[in-house]
Amino acid sequence: MASEQQPPSNAASGKLWGGRFTGEIDSLMMAYNESIHFDRALYAQDIAGSIAYARANVATGILTPSEFSAIEAGLQQVRSEWEAGTFAINPGVDEDIHTANERRLGEIIGKDTAGKLHTGRSRNDQVATDLRLWLRDALREVEALLVDLLKAIAIRAEQDVAFVMPGYTHLQRGQPVRWSHWLLSYGAFFAGDLDRLRDVIRHVNKSPLGCGALSGNAFNIDRASMAAELGFDGLVPNSMAAVADRDFIIEAMQWGAALMLHVSRWSEDLICYSTAEFGFVRLADAYTTGSSLMPQKKNCDSLELLRGKCGRVFGQMAGLMMSVKGTPMTYNKDLQESVEPMLEHVKTLKDSLQIAARVLATLTVFPDKMLAALTPDMLATDLAEYLVRKGVPFRETHHIAGRVVALAENEDIPMDKLSLGQLKAVDERFGDDVLSVFDYERSVEMKNAVGGTSKHAVLEQIKILNGVIAGGA
Amino acid sequence: MASEQQPPSNAASGKLWGGRFTGEIDSLMMAYNESIHFDRALYAQDIAGSIAYARANVATGILTPSEFSAIEAGLQQVRSEWEAGTFAINPGVDEDIHTANERRLGEIIGKDTAGKLHTGRSRNDQVATDLRLWLRDALREVEALLVDLLKAIAIRAEQDVAFVMPGYTHLQRGQPVRWSHWLLSYGAFFAGDLDRLRDVIRHVNKSPLGCGALSGNAFNIDRASMAAELGFDGLVPNSMAAVADRDFIIEAMQWGAALMLHVSRWSEDLICYSTAEFGFVRLADAYTTGSSLMPQKKNCDSLELLRGKCGRVFGQMAGLMMSVKGTPMTYNKDLQESVEPMLEHVKTLKDSLQIAARVLATLTVFPDKMLAALTPDMLATDLAEYLVRKGVPFRETHHIAGRVVALAENEDIPMDKLSLGQLKAVDERFGDDVLSVFDYERSVEMKNAVGGTSKHAVLEQIKILNGVIAGGA
Amino acid sequence: MASEQQPPSNAASGKLWGGRFTGEIDSLMMAYNESIHFDRALYAQDIAGSIAYARANVATGILTPSEFSAIEAGLQQVRSEWEAGTFAINPGVDEDIHTANERRLGEIIGKDTAGKLHTGRSRNDQVATDLRLWLRDALREVEALLVDLLKAIAIRAEQDVAFVMPGYTHLQRGQPVRWSHWLLSYGAFFAGDLDRLRDVIRHVNKSPLGCGALSGNAFNIDRASMAAELGFDGLVPNSMAAVADRDFIIEAMQWGAALMLHVSRWSEDLICYSTAEFGFVRLADAYTTGSSLMPQKKNCDSLELLRGKCGRVFGQMAGLMMSVKGTPMTYNKDLQESVEPMLEHVKTLKDSLQIAARVLATLTVFPDKMLAALTPDMLATDLAEYLVRKGVPFRETHHIAGRVVALAENEDIPMDKLSLGQLKAVDERFGDDVLSVFDYERSVEMKNAVGGTSKHAVLEQIKILNGVIAGGA
Amino acid sequence: MASEQQPPSNAASGKLWGGRFTGEIDSLMMAYNESIHFDRALYAQDIAGSIAYARANVATGILTPSEFSAIEAGLQQVRSEWEAGTFAINPGVDEDIHTANERRLGEIIGKDTAGKLHTGRSRNDQVATDLRLWLRDALREVEALLVDLLKAIAIRAEQDVAFVMPGYTHLQRGQPVRWSHWLLSYGAFFAGDLDRLRDVIRHVNKSPLGCGALSGNAFNIDRASMAAELGFDGLVPNSMAAVADRDFIIEAMQWGAALMLHVSRWSEDLICYSTAEFGFVRLADAYTTGSSLMPQKKNCDSLELLRGKCGRVFGQMAGLMMSVKGTPMTYNKDLQESVEPMLEHVKTLKDSLQIAARVLATLTVFPDKMLAALTPDMLATDLAEYLVRKGVPFRETHHIAGRVVALAENEDIPMDKLSLGQLKAVDERFGDDVLSVFDYERSVEMKNAVGGTSKHAVLEQIKILNGVIAGGA
Repeated sequence: MASEQQPPSNAASGKLWGGRFTGEIDSLMMAYNESIHFDRALYAQDIAGSIAYARANVATGILTPSEFSAIEAGLQQVRSEWEAGTFAINPGVDEDIHTANERRLGEIIGKDTAGKLHTGRSRNDQVATDLRLWLRDALREVEALLVDLLKAIAIRAEQDVAFVMPGYTHLQRGQPVRWSHWLLSYGAFFAGDLDRLRDVIRHVNKSPLGCGALSGNAFNIDRASMAAELGFDGLVPNSMAAVADRDFIIEAMQWGAALMLHVSRWSEDLICYSTAEFGFVRLADAYTTGSSLMPQKKNCDSLELLRGKCGRVFGQMAGLMMSVKGTPMTYNKDLQESVEPMLEHVKTLKDSLQIAARVLATLTVFPDKMLAALTPDMLATDLAEYLVRKGVPFRETHHIAGRVVALAENEDIPMDKLSLGQLKAVDERFGDDVLSVFDYERSVEMKNAVGGTSKHAVLEQIKILNGVIAGGA
Repeated sequence: MASEQQPPSNAASGKLWGGRFTGEIDSLMMAYNESIHFDRALYAQDIAGSIAYARANVATGILTPSEFSAIEAGLQQVRSEWEAGTFAINPGVDEDIHTANERRLGEIIGKDTAGKLHTGRSRNDQVATDLRLWLRDALREVEALLVDLLKAIAIRAEQDVAFVMPGYTHLQRGQPVRWSHWLLSYGAFFAGDLDRLRDVIRHVNKSPLGCGALSGNAFNIDRASMAAELGFDGLVPNSMAAVADRDFIIEAMQWGAALMLHVSRWSEDLICYSTAEFGFVRLADAYTTGSSLMPQKKNCDSLELLRGKCGRVFGQMAGLMMSVKGTPMTYNKDLQESVEPMLEHVKTLKDSLQIAARVLATLTVFPDKMLAALTPDMLATDLAEYLVRKGVPFRETHHIAGRVVALAENEDIPMDKLSLGQLKAVDERFGDDVLSVFDYERSVEMKNAVGGTSKHAVLEQIKILNGVIAGGA
Repeated sequence: MASEQQPPSNAASGKLWGGRFTGEIDSLMMAYNESIHFDRALYAQDIAGSIAYARANVATGILTPSEFSAIEAGLQQVRSEWEAGTFAINPGVDEDIHTANERRLGEIIGKDTAGKLHTGRSRNDQVATDLRLWLRDALREVEALLVDLLKAIAIRAEQDVAFVMPGYTHLQRGQPVRWSHWLLSYGAFFAGDLDRLRDVIRHVNKSPLGCGALSGNAFNIDRASMAAELGFDGLVPNSMAAVADRDFIIEAMQWGAALMLHVSRWSEDLICYSTAEFGFVRLADAYTTGSSLMPQKKNCDSLELLRGKCGRVFGQMAGLMMSVKGTPMTYNKDLQESVEPMLEHVKTLKDSLQIAARVLATLTVFPDKMLAALTPDMLATDLAEYLVRKGVPFRETHHIAGRVVALAENEDIPMDKLSLGQLKAVDERFGDDVLSVFDYERSVEMKNAVGGTSKHAVLEQIKILNGVIAGGA
Repeated sequence: MASEQQPPSNAASGKLWGGRFTGEIDSLMMAYNESIHFDRALYAQDIAGSIAYARANVATGILTPSEFSAIEAGLQQVRSEWEAGTFAINPGVDEDIHTANERRLGEIIGKDTAGKLHTGRSRNDQVATDLRLWLRDALREVEALLVDLLKAIAIRAEQDVAFVMPGYTHLQRGQPVRWSHWLLSYGAFFAGDLDRLRDVIRHVNKSPLGCGALSGNAFNIDRASMAAELGFDGLVPNSMAAVADRDFIIEAMQWGAALMLHVSRWSEDLICYSTAEFGFVRLADAYTTGSSLMPQKKNCDSLELLRGKCGRVFGQMAGLMMSVKGTPMTYNKDLQESVEPMLEHVKTLKDSLQIAARVLATLTVFPDKMLAALTPDMLATDLAEYLVRKGVPFRETHHIAGRVVALAENEDIPMDKLSLGQLKAVDERFGDDVLSVFDYERSVEMKNAVGGTSKHAVLEQIKILNGVIAGGA
């Protein structure tokens, strides 16, 4: 009865689950398997969850009140050790944060009482609880940083409202817009992100605690009271789903990847506007670097990193989705592959939001360069709409304005320097008042419908944005 | 002033935007660029949007009431032609659905009136409106189909509540659970999806209409009244964002990809349970196929397609995210790459939800096979918990139970056939009542905390599920 | 013995595998399952494979020579019908191309002989063969189109070699380069792609024919002779791997996605260079479109589509990878999800390569605009290197040149207009000959090491490129 | 001239590129930007590249022979410090490995000589060189570990050749195969990977050194001699491409992701075969873990981690592809996002290949369980082929065998227990010798064509595999 080869080394003793195991452990396998080097980030959540679990187990009769007090005090000491940086991980034994904390608790309060803590619980519901608590809190920090970015946009949009610049479609000059209107276009994107983030946090914030390994708790534990203690909004309704689910991480990463798509577009625009050719803005030195070869260079590294990290966070999301795909119901070790990407993902979001807000707040804007980039052909639509107001069907005015553009190109003079006679030669309906069209400020002020570029419409957008910041979606 | 080569063919005449163009069109480029072969799916939304836009342009003074009536009637005729399948696309001219509809409208009511329709509007806000309308309606259909799947789960879970099967972690037998509990674990996943879908629909359902090419509308159009006519829940607040945004498609696809991850896991489980080795379920013939070579085969093609399509919908999402990454603000033609994937994505979701519901509804379940797969070692936790109830710390009972498992393995007899003497030899605290532990029904009934496997806890889950179906998140 | 519900409709009769099936078919399931609407693209490969298979089965004794002749003639007629567009698909019966072709063959030559064709073969090895043949041929077409693009680059690079433009890092002006050098930078990317494509074709071109459903062929069929007839380079060495493998499609798509990444960067550059602000190039009208609202617009739609389609092809690759992840060995229906993406992927590559080549060939270049964009600060490195040649350590010269840049900025005069006195005030070692540094042509000519910007180095690159085109990797 | 806000802190002094900078540095930005905490992994490559660069600069006249000697000795000392773990990173100054090494060199040999090292070089070509050297060497280590896995497969396949098991399609029992044949199916996958890896290494191993920041080297440096010293196979032919290219990392990651797809399928199979229901194999204790709650559990954590990490490496690849998408030509800081994923990717591959090889080498196989899982219906194809040998067309025999399967099912007896009379009642052409068909060993031996399951065919596959291992693709 067949073939086994090469015995590996290291005893399995000391593991929480070691009872029936006789074989040896391979040290590479131990390193491949253990999570303590990253899930230690969850220490505070793990301890809070254990205290809530122990408290609820007084009611079930598993623990006496004094046993609970000992556990609570012991766990608080463990937390203090983590906070102080004095917690000593026992290599090869503390394979994960749950094991480490329980091992240390046993040392502090004795194994008899500590050994009761895990009754009816599994690392399956424990880790799910830790992850949800950690992510909920982390996303609230992300929320605050996103609000900071939105505030930076709102402040800047209000302050710079007088500046008019080319608005682009296809990166070709389209129509004049206010610089603040451009700022608020990303304000709209990020406000949508904020709205969605609040939904995500609500979805994350459900308690799996008390679901055991997969089938629930056999001691009638009060899941609702534990959830309330831990600040959860509700319960995961099925014990198998509770331990099998990493959707809350996927959802958070999908959100993060969508946020960073916005950041990538925002960075792209600012990189472009920072070129010598556009010249609309200049980043503060703090957010640029130079070249080791070319002495004159000042590069928008901050923006490029922001744009590049869009890929990183996307990859974390895509990777986890693939890890989860096709795994059978309940816990499989594949799910451990969610933790490191989650930690890195959130860190990247937090750093990136701060960098973006600071880049924006310290940006120098050159309104005269923006003005210089406005060209009369950008008013061709205004010209067409001038005739619309005289009753000419738009489809016809579009062609007339097109012929005016072509005429100006052929004559190689700016469109606003064409004579009235030249304009009338294209279409008789051009009147003396046509020259008033060639005014960029007038053009942006004409767009006064909701969401447009007029000063009034822009200031209204800032109000809406402030409303979203304040929490009204 | 440099080098141009090889002149291509086909005149650009007849294009909406052709006014200033003199060059020729390349027929491959025309095919590469035009979208009519897929965006014709949006014809009804395009027409509804145009009617709303025209109606609002009576108030702006662009259209007289009678011009509006003519436009409305004309567009209704265009819609009838699409519905009847008689709409004749003009190849090379009707590059997209917007162009096609306006061209045809002009033929019906004359170019003078039809030519006023597009005043102050751009295909940029038009297509964004069409897409949002289409997607909102499509997602509501998806919602209804997802509700159908959830109902099938709820019905089946109630009907089959007596069946007990092995619950797996790591695909290894863990603890007994009810078959209904397994069903409801996916019920919990899909109920979460339903909850999130309702959020997604709300985000999609914002109006970009009246935002023009990028800078807004110069005729003070009433965006809110148009939005109300079209059933939108609100407005996109910034005109640049309105035309630049395809996030609503990304968000819908992220949702769809997460849904299909669940479907992939569900399929994986059922494929496994359908093997000769597990034998818990058998698919109805309608959802299987045979082999062209092996006469005995009956394969779960439906489930494998469901699992495989998880990749397809993920790819559509990932692809669109990459298409959008780093594009500059407002409309760029890259965004056209969102339409086909969206159409395919939604179709796949709709088909898949129906297939899944039908597979489930027609599935034959073999409770005796499930029962036969239960083995006494799956009650080792119950054995440990038996001692917990006698006051032994769990961590100690876990090791005791582990030794019992090892003893049974070494003796090569089922754990429940060990004598009381053998058990007491492992630990004296085992009493005469220990044999009552070896009862699978008792084991599932013990898990009576919320979300557990007891009959009561399972029926409660069905109630919660029915609540979600009814719309209470 | 449990619950079945709702009987679906449509008989399963007529299926190749219908022998033991008694249940009914669901019409949605039939549509979900069948592949004929896309795998019909493989008709010619399917027929070629069947002819080779039949020929080899004369040697095994399965077919007589006259039976083979009948089969060959029949299959040639089937092919003619496909080519003429007269092949009539039998809905609900012809679920895939294999079934359709064999059904039709039976009608033409009678079922007795046609019924021998599939002996020892399965659709599993048949479809793998069809796919590999199709993909091999398609990739050879892609190879030819990629060569065309490379030729366009080489021609243009030679012709435009005199033009000097700013070379960018971080989209900031760095050092002057030849326009041809920029062209050849993408030439280097695409030449690498060509080299890799030739490897991919070699990997694709292995024969799975004769591997049966999974375990091989029981009639000692000569796999090598069939492979030779079909132009394969070798055999897949294991029958299970042969039917389980869609890596050849994944590899081709990975290649395609990497190619399109290059295309996306190339497009990005040209979109940027086409802006009013850069103004270096202008696309031929054939590869642009206008705006339905803004009469003056001329947009680089072709380039934006190329850039956007990078996402599409990436999504096809990513999706298939997810579909394949975690599937068990040998054939699973999930693998069917490879076919449509493969067909779309290759079409997109072929179209895109042609569009790119034509855009490039018809591009108007404005060397005077390029020249005007060169600024003296781009020669700061040359200035530093001037002092290097005088023996000053580079790290010191870099700082000296940096101070000159700062001086010019502070004085608000171009660096080349600083007086010798001003320069000497920064560093005494600047000599009278320093002004010769301020010459863009000199600067590009100085970079004469392999791969540099001098005319000689550029012409050498064209030679290397032509070598790759000719087939020497 | 507009708005700047909040000044950040920390001076920019000491940066390589600090000459013209006057502003302050933000400490978060410094952390966001700097790469020393991960690119220190490239220290040896960075030093080797610098030595080669310095040696070549003797020929250009930049360095005297004695200056070169000083630099070489200094750099060797720097390397020794890294190796000994005594290199002290200067926080906030040593932003990357290039800066750190040059800073330290200056301390050792003095700034005057050290300051000449970077002449004509940029960190752009330097980092590209470091990355290619590192990746080349790392992939050669991966190659060796992949060879180890293939050897483990070959050894095991030879040793276990007698064992027959069910071969599956769609996870349903299809036809009997040898266990070794299953092993070799993955052998074929991994051998293909090995073949492709050797191509990848060749593509990676091209030298960018001597390309400067983007435009080449102004001192006629001999790129070929540096490449030879560093073991490169050739040169990147264009200086802009050389610094802009991270394709070599993408290609390596595409390879790695495809490898891990294979690993995911292999793991999936073994997880399935390890279930109580299949029971074909058991992992050595060293590669399993237990449960903190369920004492009886023994879980295949190693295999699940392998399967889950397929997602991680895919995500690294997908993320980098997105980071690179649409970036303009030459270096942008986005490209820095390639380094950490590359390091993690390679580590994961190396660990995973070792774990897989050890899992396989120590696996216990249960051939009697495999035998017990073989059922007579798996010989239905053999039965059909029996009649083929009597001259009956296969398509007819397939239906006849299907009816036999149905008969056995209806009678609820194994197919091989049907009487000859019962068989003849289905089809008269069944003769007395038909019972010889019901023999699993005979069935696998019949598949003697190349790549089949006969002992001879399996041993031939092992020979081919050993050939690939030895380097003949």
